Amino acid sequence: MKIGVLGTGSVGQAIATALVKAGHSVMMGSRTAGNEKAVSWQASQPTNAEIGNFDDTAAYGELLFFCLNGSFALEAAAQIAQEHVTGKAVIDTTNPLDFSGGMPPGILEAYRNVSLGEQLQAALPGARIVKALNTLNYKVMVDARVVNGGDHTLYLCGNDVTAKETIKDLLADNFYWTRTNLVDLGDISAARGMEAIVPFWVQVMQSLHTPLFNFKVVH
Amino acid sequence: MKIGVLGTGSVGQAIATALVKAGHSVMMGSRTAGNEKAVSWQASQPTNAEIGNFDDTAAYGELLFFCLNGSFALEAAAQIAQEHVTGKAVIDTTNPLDFSGGMPPGILEAYRNVSLGEQLQAALPGARIVKALNTLNYKVMVDARVVNGGDHTLYLCGNDVTAKETIKDLLADNFYWTRTNLVDLGDISAARGMEAIVPFWVQVMQSLHTPLFNFKVVH
Repeated sequence: MKIGVLGTGSVGQAIATALVKAGHSVMMGSRTAGNEKAVSWQASQPTNAEIGNFDDTAAYGELLFFCLNGSFALEAAAQIAQEHVTGKAVIDTTNPLDFSGGMPPGILEAYRNVSLGEQLQAALPGARIVKALNTLNYKVMVDARVVNGGDHTLYLCGNDVTAKETIKDLLADNFYWTRTNLVDLGDISAARGMEAIVPFWVQVMQSLHTPLFNFKVVH
Repeated sequence: MKIGVLGTGSVGQAIATALVKAGHSVMMGSRTAGNEKAVSWQASQPTNAEIGNFDDTAAYGELLFFCLNGSFALEAAAQIAQEHVTGKAVIDTTNPLDFSGGMPPGILEAYRNVSLGEQLQAALPGARIVKALNTLNYKVMVDARVVNGGDHTLYLCGNDVTAKETIKDLLADNFYWTRTNLVDLGDISAARGMEAIVPFWVQVMQSLHTPLFNFKVVH
C-alpha cells in the first residue's frame, strides 16, 4: 500500500521505517520537500521511500499518518489540498502539549475544550480521521510486543467505522497489535480524553523511569 | 483507628462502610450533622459509626477521607478548623468534574491549571494531603479484588512521604490493594494528571459498559 507519513520526528521516523519494513511504499512529508531529516531518512531506507512536502505526501498516500508536533498540526493541514485527503483514512497521532510550564506538560489552551483530533477533522472534512497511537512511546506504537509480550490496550476513535476497521487491520498486520486489545471509544470527540491523558502518561513515565510501558484495561 | 469520612455520596458510603467492617471507628461528615444520608448510613452500621458536621468529623478522625463532590470540596475545607487537620493524613478522592456539557464530563475551569488536590493542600496547609482512589469506581476503591483478582494499578501523590506510606498501609490492610501495584507519582502537583484522566475513565466505562474495570501498568 502507498502510505504518506507527515512528520519527520521520532514518531514519523519510527512509523515510516516500520511501514517500509512491512513492505509498504512510504512518502515522508515535511514543510519543505528538502527537509534534512526526511532526506536522511530516505537515504537510510533500502527501497520504497519517497519524500515530499505535506501536500505531495497527502496526494501520494492511500492512507496517511499525521505525526506532527501538535502545535503545528493544523498549520500543516492547511497546506494540504482537500481533494488529496478526501475519503482517505488518516491516523492522527498528534498531541497538543504545552511544555511552557516545564514537565510534565499541560494541554495547550486552544485544545482544552475541543481536541486537536476534532479540529483536524474539521480542517479536513473529507478525510476520515482516526485518533490512535498518541498515548504511547514511538517504539511501542510500531511494535506492541516490546511491552508485556504485546498484551496491553490501545484506544482509537473516529467518525468513520470503515476507516477504524482499516486502521485496526493495519495495526494488527504491521505493528503487532492484538485485535482484542484495540478499544474503540466512539466518534472523534473521544479524542478529548485520549489527548487529555498524555500529561498523565508523562508523569507515570517519570515515575517508572522508562517510556516502554503501557496500560492494560483489566476487568 | 478513628477515621473521619467527609461526604455522604456513593464514595463516602462505600469507604465508611468498608472501614467499619475492617474494625475502625468511623464518623461520616456532612454540611449539617443531621444529613439524611448520614443518619441512614449510621443506622445501617452495627457499631462504631458516628455522624457529625465537617469540622466535627475532621476533629474526630486521626486520618481523614475527602469524598466530596469536587465542585464543593473547597467550600467544605473552609468549614474545618485548621487545628483539626494539622499533621493528619487526608486522602483526597475528589474530582473537579464539569458535567455541564453532558457525558463524558470535562474538568471545571477553575482546576485546569492547578488541580483540586493542590488547592485542597493550599486550603489546609497543616494537613498531609494524599491524592488517591479518584480514578476508580467506588466498589473497586474499597475492594481491589473485584477487578482482575486485585492485580491492577493505583496511583497516589502527595507532599508528605510518611503520609503516603500510612495510606499505602491502609489500602493494603483494609481495601485489598497489593503494595507493588501502588505507584507513587510524586508531590501533590501530580494530582493534575490524576484528575485529568477521569473524563477518559468515563469514556472507557461507556465503551466497556461497566464501571468495574481498571488499568494495569505493564512493561
